[in-house]
Amino acid sequence: MFEKNLQIPCLLDIYGALLTDRKRELLEYYYAEDYSLSEISELTGISRQGIRDSIKKSESELISFEKALGLYGKRLRTTEHLKNIRKILSERSDSDLSERLASELLQIEELVL
Amino acid sequence: MFEKNLQIPCLLDIYGALLTDRKRELLEYYYAEDYSLSEISELTGISRQGIRDSIKKSESELISFEKALGLYGKRLRTTEHLKNIRKILSERSDSDLSERLASELLQIEELVL
Repeated sequence: MFEKNLQIPCLLDIYGALLTDRKRELLEYYYAEDYSLSEISELTGISRQGIRDSIKKSESELISFEKALGLYGKRLRTTEHLKNIRKILSERSDSDLSERLASELLQIEELVL
Repeated sequence: MFEKNLQIPCLLDIYGALLTDRKRELLEYYYAEDYSLSEISELTGISRQGIRDSIKKSESELISFEKALGLYGKRLRTTEHLKNIRKILSERSDSDLSERLASELLQIEELVL
């Protein structure tokens, strides 16, 4: 077992669609479903070393995508600002305003997070 | 001259970092600086047909990135929600609230647009 990179599940969520189906599948077994390399080998018929190489390569690809586009970093910072907005609104008693803004904020969250 | 795809400059802005330097350079000459294929050929020493092929291939790549990640579509929809929030706030006379929220919104815009 090699060390798991804790950022990978987030990067997989954001950039997974840019990987081939096979690469994404192996990464999901390992990170999302927490199978061991040996278990994935049994499931797929690919050698343990082949799986390890594919996962390492996919991890590098995901990290390159983040270096190029920075969506994970932007997502974290956007979350902070959305939290701040919710906090500012929660200090007010104007419920009509809050409700209308909350609905817009929710839709932004769904789009960017 | 082949037909220009009006979405490409936006997709280039969003996904350009995922293309090779050379591909991005040719696309920028063509779309951002509006050079003709013959002019780009003179500038780079690459044949007119070579440039055309590269641009067509890069366009397909950008469109694939958008199909996979949909960032351009999300950006358009996020812009709409941010506009709505600004409109809701502009109807209020509470300038302290508006200023504080406007600052947060500006930072979200910078992150996601």
